[in-house]
Amino acid sequence: MVDNLIYLAVGAPILALIFVVLRTKSIYSKSEGTDRMKEIAKAIQDGAVAFLTTEYKVLAIFVVVLAGVLAGALGDIGVRTAISFVSGAILSAGAGWLGMRVATKSAVRTTEAAKTSLSAALDVAFSSGAVMGMAVVGFGLLGLTGLYIGFGQDKLAIDAVFGFSLGASTIALFARVGGGIFTKAADVGADLVGKVEAGIPEDDPRNPATIADNVGDNVGDVAGMGADLFESYVGSIIAAIALGYSAKTIAGDAVSETVKSGLVVFPLALSGAGIICSIIGTFFVSTNDDKKIHNALFRGLIIATVLAIGVSFALVKMLELPMELFYTVVVGLASGVIIGKITEYYTSGDHKPVKSIIDQTKTGPATTLIQGLAVGMESCALPVIVIAVSIFFAFEWCGVYGIAIAAVGMLSTLGISLGVDAYGPVADNAGGLAEMSECDPIVRERTDALDSVGNTTAAIGKGFAIGSAALTALALFNTFGEAIIAGVNKMAVEEIAKLDTAVFVKGMDGLVTNLRFDLLNPNVLIGLLLGGILPFLFSAMTMKAVGRAAGAMIEEVRRQFKTIPGIMEGTGKPDYAACVTISTKAAIAEMVLPGLMAVAAPLAVGCLLGPAALAGLLAGALVCGIMMAIMMANAGGAWDNAKKEVEGGAAGGKGSDAHAAAVVGDTVGDPFKDTSGPAINILIKLMCIVSLVFVPLFLKFLG
Amino acid sequence: MVDNLIYLAVGAPILALIFVVLRTKSIYSKSEGTDRMKEIAKAIQDGAVAFLTTEYKVLAIFVVVLAGVLAGALGDIGVRTAISFVSGAILSAGAGWLGMRVATKSAVRTTEAAKTSLSAALDVAFSSGAVMGMAVVGFGLLGLTGLYIGFGQDKLAIDAVFGFSLGASTIALFARVGGGIFTKAADVGADLVGKVEAGIPEDDPRNPATIADNVGDNVGDVAGMGADLFESYVGSIIAAIALGYSAKTIAGDAVSETVKSGLVVFPLALSGAGIICSIIGTFFVSTNDDKKIHNALFRGLIIATVLAIGVSFALVKMLELPMELFYTVVVGLASGVIIGKITEYYTSGDHKPVKSIIDQTKTGPATTLIQGLAVGMESCALPVIVIAVSIFFAFEWCGVYGIAIAAVGMLSTLGISLGVDAYGPVADNAGGLAEMSECDPIVRERTDALDSVGNTTAAIGKGFAIGSAALTALALFNTFGEAIIAGVNKMAVEEIAKLDTAVFVKGMDGLVTNLRFDLLNPNVLIGLLLGGILPFLFSAMTMKAVGRAAGAMIEEVRRQFKTIPGIMEGTGKPDYAACVTISTKAAIAEMVLPGLMAVAAPLAVGCLLGPAALAGLLAGALVCGIMMAIMMANAGGAWDNAKKEVEGGAAGGKGSDAHAAAVVGDTVGDPFKDTSGPAINILIKLMCIVSLVFVPLFLKFLG
Repeated sequence: MVDNLIYLAVGAPILALIFVVLRTKSIYSKSEGTDRMKEIAKAIQDGAVAFLTTEYKVLAIFVVVLAGVLAGALGDIGVRTAISFVSGAILSAGAGWLGMRVATKSAVRTTEAAKTSLSAALDVAFSSGAVMGMAVVGFGLLGLTGLYIGFGQDKLAIDAVFGFSLGASTIALFARVGGGIFTKAADVGADLVGKVEAGIPEDDPRNPATIADNVGDNVGDVAGMGADLFESYVGSIIAAIALGYSAKTIAGDAVSETVKSGLVVFPLALSGAGIICSIIGTFFVSTNDDKKIHNALFRGLIIATVLAIGVSFALVKMLELPMELFYTVVVGLASGVIIGKITEYYTSGDHKPVKSIIDQTKTGPATTLIQGLAVGMESCALPVIVIAVSIFFAFEWCGVYGIAIAAVGMLSTLGISLGVDAYGPVADNAGGLAEMSECDPIVRERTDALDSVGNTTAAIGKGFAIGSAALTALALFNTFGEAIIAGVNKMAVEEIAKLDTAVFVKGMDGLVTNLRFDLLNPNVLIGLLLGGILPFLFSAMTMKAVGRAAGAMIEEVRRQFKTIPGIMEGTGKPDYAACVTISTKAAIAEMVLPGLMAVAAPLAVGCLLGPAALAGLLAGALVCGIMMAIMMANAGGAWDNAKKEVEGGAAGGKGSDAHAAAVVGDTVGDPFKDTSGPAINILIKLMCIVSLVFVPLFLKFLG
Repeated sequence: MVDNLIYLAVGAPILALIFVVLRTKSIYSKSEGTDRMKEIAKAIQDGAVAFLTTEYKVLAIFVVVLAGVLAGALGDIGVRTAISFVSGAILSAGAGWLGMRVATKSAVRTTEAAKTSLSAALDVAFSSGAVMGMAVVGFGLLGLTGLYIGFGQDKLAIDAVFGFSLGASTIALFARVGGGIFTKAADVGADLVGKVEAGIPEDDPRNPATIADNVGDNVGDVAGMGADLFESYVGSIIAAIALGYSAKTIAGDAVSETVKSGLVVFPLALSGAGIICSIIGTFFVSTNDDKKIHNALFRGLIIATVLAIGVSFALVKMLELPMELFYTVVVGLASGVIIGKITEYYTSGDHKPVKSIIDQTKTGPATTLIQGLAVGMESCALPVIVIAVSIFFAFEWCGVYGIAIAAVGMLSTLGISLGVDAYGPVADNAGGLAEMSECDPIVRERTDALDSVGNTTAAIGKGFAIGSAALTALALFNTFGEAIIAGVNKMAVEEIAKLDTAVFVKGMDGLVTNLRFDLLNPNVLIGLLLGGILPFLFSAMTMKAVGRAAGAMIEEVRRQFKTIPGIMEGTGKPDYAACVTISTKAAIAEMVLPGLMAVAAPLAVGCLLGPAALAGLLAGALVCGIMMAIMMANAGGAWDNAKKEVEGGAAGGKGSDAHAAAVVGDTVGDPFKDTSGPAINILIKLMCIVSLVFVPLFLKFLG
């Protein structure tokens, strides 16, 4: 029984990839519309490919170098870790490439389908999102299961598979940071010169930055979000397997060998089963009523979730594991949904927080900013309490293994939940294309209906991404702690075997101080303080990077308006590619420093100050990072929707002083929610996985 | 020898209080100037008294109730803790009252003295600051030493004296939070209606909120800052004494009984000696050259610091303690100075960070805000690294005792450093008085020269306040940890004595989980996450409170402009008192909820989730709180000075669009730097001291 269930984690992702192929074919078979539409769509597609190609070239160098380091520094499992690392990087990059390719090809087809009906358009847009979602879970689960089985399916095998997670994290870092910078530089550049200075509407084809802006939506919200969740997905599963091997008691009982093999297989089987539930869920997403798009999307998600609950019950029974494991999965699934709902409350125009910001727009930008920041800060409380409660129960029931399982549970239906999320940018782009190719007003109306729901799902998706990142990081953090303790125990045994008392005592002394992950150990406190710095520094770096990149974009757009004859009359053609190149170059250049910091900080602290200080560093980065990520994402989302409400007529409507204030809030919120906030998700996970992978190195420094 | 050195901590504060009396007499003997000046000054004095009286009435109830709780809940030492608590509250309130009374009386005399010469004006303003400084250290040290000696000068005595620190914290909480809300409500109200709507200059006597604004400077920057540092001062000394009792090794050697009595006396003797050094320093503050005010102030501070270094060397020798203790004091003193310098770098108009904000004012409020937030976030790194390095060396040399001694060292010259800091608002008020009473331009010029230096010292003072709060909180945190461990050990011994095995095992089980202050203990992680929420929630609450209070103030000012005939012509008299009352009422009402949260959170977590989760809570609040406090203080300071530079002609000067953008930044920064940021200092210290005082209660819940 147990032996067979692991093949769920091979078969299901293959099914997911078949789904990807079929859906992609079906999307590609749809019409691309008029020549004008094709032309614009091609510019966006080319821009996206240009960005990814440039980014992946830089990444390739980084991946090769780091693979060499891994192979050299990690002794026995070095080569296998390096193989895992490269596989993780390639598969994550591949999922991102595929998702983005399909998204950019789907947007124009969504516009064309919107000429027929809303349901046809929803079908194309959601299919594109689902392709991204299934590509992520398919590549992720197949890759990690394949490596794990290939490496011999034991404890040492999973240690080497940590590299897979590191590879995924590396891609995610660059995709999120680089993508976040790209998208906001283009957005701000397009808005400030186009809308404010030249007075032309959003998505106007006369604006040279408009293609870059549309490319940015895909780069940030499709490839970036996908890579972020790819990392959480594989990270949580790998942590669960590793913690399964080291579990001593579950639900109060000592872990037998049978139970242990169940624990190790369970996360894989659950993830496989979750993919199948997600695929089933996708078939329920359909509507022709523009009031019911939201319901249609969530119907699919809810069906998948309910199925996943049922399936996890069955799996626990089949594997003869304690029922507490099932409860933990439910807690994980539930907390994902609750965090999404809380995020919706704080960022949607229908509720008090955004309304309070709208109120403050009447007294100008300063009060708008203060209120938005206050809303963001306040919004940290509930999601973090939900995470804390989940950890409490997960641990109470299943120990540290439970924390990882809660994360795996939360992410088990990622195939469809990422699909719902990644549908947003496609709808957004479809609207832009309708505008640029001067389609019928009814087309724009339909794409607007799709887009407005997409904004809500994007905000919820951000909350979900943070929540899952937090749980995954906590699971990885515990895995790191257990790995250090196991490593040290092994070293102690070896020291005893040597029977060289002097060395032994010296060795033990060092070990004891470095193992006290205790808050009263000053090394831990020092690490904690240093860790707290990182999310703040990281946010500052990424925010300033957006500022610099946007500045370059503004100059380029101004230059084109000045030097290209007939551009404003629509007779001269703007040089879209030049703007894409500027955003691309800026993104690539600016992502390096924060990226290096995220990798270097844990390595430096772990080697120089020891594992205890490193544990402090991770904990400090984790707690500050979670707060900052939620604060920035929600403040940004709330400002965004406040502006939309004002544009819809609240507080004096478009053109009023309140509108100007709301625009200031939205502009500050843009790098908050689309660059710095999401990048922190990666920062905290990446630091944990770097620490985990380099445990053998830290142990060497201890010895 | 040892026995006598403790009397330094009795004699020196008495000297400080004599200094207070003499300087106050000397200030009071100066002329108050014209009748017009007297009248305005009286309004400010009455306003300040009205605020403090109302605040202290509310506080009195809170203090009486909490004293009752302490007496009841803490068993043996309950009554003595309650006595200490009430003493701490009364003495801190007394120092605040005195400092504010003298400050408001000095402002008008500074204006009058400025008619004669700059040096005469500097003398009055600095004397007022020095009175505040000496009142704080005098009352603080005399009170705690008196109680400690009175209670029998042993370990149990110091346990009871923890209450003194709690009393000081309680006053500080309300003074900082209430004061911060008061001052910003008045400031924003005066600016938005007076300057923006009615178009009259700052400090114009026709503006009904102008007196409240001037009262606010004293309430926030004199009484609030004084109470904050009073708390750090006594908290660090008390923590050092307690950790001295529990010290096992210092500088690598086991602690003998002689060394232990030295360790216990050292912080008291050092603080006493520091007072004398500070008094000497005050005599070197004098200049008649408006370019050299900054130097004159820092000359006094540097002389006091150098003397303190010499004296601490002598004390270590006399007490026959290891030289490492001396190094630790130097590290503490040095890190205070370095943090001040870093703060100056990030907030002064002469350096890159503020210049980068000025640059961004040219592209509007949004980029101004993004850049300011980025500067604030970036500015966390260096001060926190300084704190981390201090802890590292302090612990390396002297264990946890060293962390407390670094804090005591940093604060040993508080008498003069607070004097330099509290001189600022007096100079500011003197300028306002010169404006309101239509003095000669030369008078305003001189007070402006004093004020501009005051802005720098205020920014540095805020950095120093945060740095010392962080070190103090860390010292209190470690004291809390040691107290829990000691308490649990004692309980274990009692359980063993009972020989009731069943109870013993149950008891020990609970104890073990609750004592693992280990980051791998999920209770610690849960506490850490919950703790991280608090500074964010606290900041959100206080920022929103300022918004509400300012709203009420704006309405009142508008009402007066409308209903009082001849107010704009200067023939009708505005109702200043009504505005003071509004700020007072708002401040009192709004301070209750955040105040309760700060007290209730550690109590609830400690009783319900146990000491390990509580340790996590404190650590989480500490790390997030330090970052947020620095971020908010420095972003606010940087925006403030960016605005001043623009008003001085940078980026287009007054009236330009850049100026409007800079004003938005400054307005957002106001509650950052004067309300929420400083309030976090108190939050983190108060939570630690509440936890420390209620250790017996948490132990009861464990048993």
